[in-house]
Amino acid sequence: MKIALIIENSQAAKSEIVHDALKTVADPLGHSVFHYGMYGPEDEAQLTYIMNGLLAGILLNSKAADFVVTGCGTGMGSMLGCNAMPGVICGLVIDPTDAFLFGQINDGNAISMPYAKGFGWAAELNLQDCYRKLFEVERGVGYPKERAEIMAKNRGILGAVKAAACHDMLTVLKTVDQDLLKAAISGEKFSEYFFANSQDEAMSDYLKSVLAA
Amino acid sequence: MKIALIIENSQAAKSEIVHDALKTVADPLGHSVFHYGMYGPEDEAQLTYIMNGLLAGILLNSKAADFVVTGCGTGMGSMLGCNAMPGVICGLVIDPTDAFLFGQINDGNAISMPYAKGFGWAAELNLQDCYRKLFEVERGVGYPKERAEIMAKNRGILGAVKAAACHDMLTVLKTVDQDLLKAAISGEKFSEYFFANSQDEAMSDYLKSVLAA
Amino acid sequence: MKIALIIENSQAAKSEIVHDALKTVADPLGHSVFHYGMYGPEDEAQLTYIMNGLLAGILLNSKAADFVVTGCGTGMGSMLGCNAMPGVICGLVIDPTDAFLFGQINDGNAISMPYAKGFGWAAELNLQDCYRKLFEVERGVGYPKERAEIMAKNRGILGAVKAAACHDMLTVLKTVDQDLLKAAISGEKFSEYFFANSQDEAMSDYLKSVLAA
Amino acid sequence: MKIALIIENSQAAKSEIVHDALKTVADPLGHSVFHYGMYGPEDEAQLTYIMNGLLAGILLNSKAADFVVTGCGTGMGSMLGCNAMPGVICGLVIDPTDAFLFGQINDGNAISMPYAKGFGWAAELNLQDCYRKLFEVERGVGYPKERAEIMAKNRGILGAVKAAACHDMLTVLKTVDQDLLKAAISGEKFSEYFFANSQDEAMSDYLKSVLAA
Repeated sequence: MKIALIIENSQAAKSEIVHDALKTVADPLGHSVFHYGMYGPEDEAQLTYIMNGLLAGILLNSKAADFVVTGCGTGMGSMLGCNAMPGVICGLVIDPTDAFLFGQINDGNAISMPYAKGFGWAAELNLQDCYRKLFEVERGVGYPKERAEIMAKNRGILGAVKAAACHDMLTVLKTVDQDLLKAAISGEKFSEYFFANSQDEAMSDYLKSVLAA
Repeated sequence: MKIALIIENSQAAKSEIVHDALKTVADPLGHSVFHYGMYGPEDEAQLTYIMNGLLAGILLNSKAADFVVTGCGTGMGSMLGCNAMPGVICGLVIDPTDAFLFGQINDGNAISMPYAKGFGWAAELNLQDCYRKLFEVERGVGYPKERAEIMAKNRGILGAVKAAACHDMLTVLKTVDQDLLKAAISGEKFSEYFFANSQDEAMSDYLKSVLAA
Repeated sequence: MKIALIIENSQAAKSEIVHDALKTVADPLGHSVFHYGMYGPEDEAQLTYIMNGLLAGILLNSKAADFVVTGCGTGMGSMLGCNAMPGVICGLVIDPTDAFLFGQINDGNAISMPYAKGFGWAAELNLQDCYRKLFEVERGVGYPKERAEIMAKNRGILGAVKAAACHDMLTVLKTVDQDLLKAAISGEKFSEYFFANSQDEAMSDYLKSVLAA
Repeated sequence: MKIALIIENSQAAKSEIVHDALKTVADPLGHSVFHYGMYGPEDEAQLTYIMNGLLAGILLNSKAADFVVTGCGTGMGSMLGCNAMPGVICGLVIDPTDAFLFGQINDGNAISMPYAKGFGWAAELNLQDCYRKLFEVERGVGYPKERAEIMAKNRGILGAVKAAACHDMLTVLKTVDQDLLKAAISGEKFSEYFFANSQDEAMSDYLKSVLAA
């Protein structure tokens, strides 16, 4: 699985803590982690939580990533930014049981976590525990398992409702503020990672034009 | 302020606990609580978390409600259902500090809470504490206050991005599965509460036609 | 390791949930779990949190158990009961990181957990996660590891202070209310488990006399 | 009420955050806060969590303080240190509901809180909320109120068991390592605050002799 990591500017100083925790869990499981930034508070490309959401929408809808791990101070802004996008189902995960239940019941494709609120001593242990509860097990199996079928059915209905409520991602990209969009994809490694992994030519072409503008 | 309460079917047995806690806080502050169901597990009209979201979208976009309090087992499903809708900014709130920070930073119009996960002894006290942190104070003032301006700016950008990403609510209503929509508005008191408070004639007309179909 | 499980009367109905979670973790690691009760709310022998503490003091000081897992509604009462005893260092554990840090830093011989407060859906998963953080790893290694030495030194000092502050356990047994003591050791399986495992003849003899009285 | 604040060396840098939060709540309620240190990481008198416990034992048994607020990285060490002392009933408090239930059910005379684990953004708000749940209400009233009587009875039994298990405080002071004791009472303001407020002449005399040694 391709896991994209996206960190908001207010928590950019914790980039390495989060990246290390994610890689500690994901690498041995055979997943690839792509860190789309920010990498540190002084990065030229500053990502707000809204840009985190746009970026998650781009990566997931283009299949450049299979799963997005993001976050901000409370996790709330990035979660809202992600869930505003078509095709993104982003959970707010605070503890390992949240992570497990989100994986089993909602089986979304993104999580947002708080990297400031409640983030104290040993917080990196909690990050790892949360990632394990998502990535070490089969997701979408239901909890309790007897309710697997109804849970799967509801996930399908939620997907259909989101599809009815949202424009498709390419339309969203063309409609949002183009400066905001350009800022969201101006991270140091975006072009390297994204264009090699995107499976949506129209989206790739459009984003190339945005970067060239 | 008109506060709508919406409870998912899996947690319908806790309807009165949640309603009581909400009224204990909201009534003395002069807010009106409208309980849109479910009222108990045996209700004829069963609300899934997706319907919670649709209902929140209807109530907030029509201005029949100013704020929605919803929830499900983990709070996650209802949060996802709400955030799939245009014009709904729904936080997942677990503890009082979550509630406070969501109110100050994100200043959304809905919260979803877990009514099963972590919901044990004295959970009604935590509900009240969370509601207090949202309703007893001025929201949107920023935390820390020095960051109020940038936080307000980001809220505006998130609103614009959601508007670019979503269809308007009336279109959503016409596009989603009509049986699902009808089920979402078939609660015992929906018609009484909604049509008296809606400020959107087109939405009211459309929903009347759905109920009549 | 011999792990003793002790459950307070207010949470006796959850006896099997806790016992199952503990055995799920402890059995594969080669530990033996001895369930000293309560087994259900109707048990003849009712254990209050104070009796939980007395029982923990008996089991640990006699080496009938190497580790005690106990709890009550909030976990607080049983923790207080345990820490009132000589030779018992009991942590209050709520989440997996608590369990890990208690094991690494304080390396005590007992934990108390809440079985009502915060004990909702999927709480059995949190129990297992907490037990894993205690029993799957070497304890007392320090966190962070660079502080291992000072942490070990402080544990030694705490032990010495407790020894200076408390009477020895046999004296405590002879001094406390004898009806309370008898009630604490009247559980259905106490005699079977305790007398086979106690390594303190004087304590065993005294408790036999109490039971015979 | 005289509230003593005691902070462990590892968290001394947070002294002002904790002190401010405590005074914000306690002052308007008419309580007096006595900050016994540490005041900053560079203080000459370094308090370990064991010394926090000794100090709490001294202050509470001499009635120089009516309530002790302490803490360390996880809160666990200081809690253990306090509960090792005669006459000290110290809760580990992490969230407001913990604080409330400890106050209502266990009605102890000390709390320990984590100032590193989980201590991130807005943690000072949680501190205030916890203090409010303890100090703004009548404690010991029971939760739920119907169980007030049995809860009060159990508190009495716990007190009796602790009294049976522990030596009296003066004996403890004479028995513990005298260097440790001297270090525990060598804080910059100990003499000023303690000797003016102690109501136990024997303890005061003994501690004067320790300081003079």
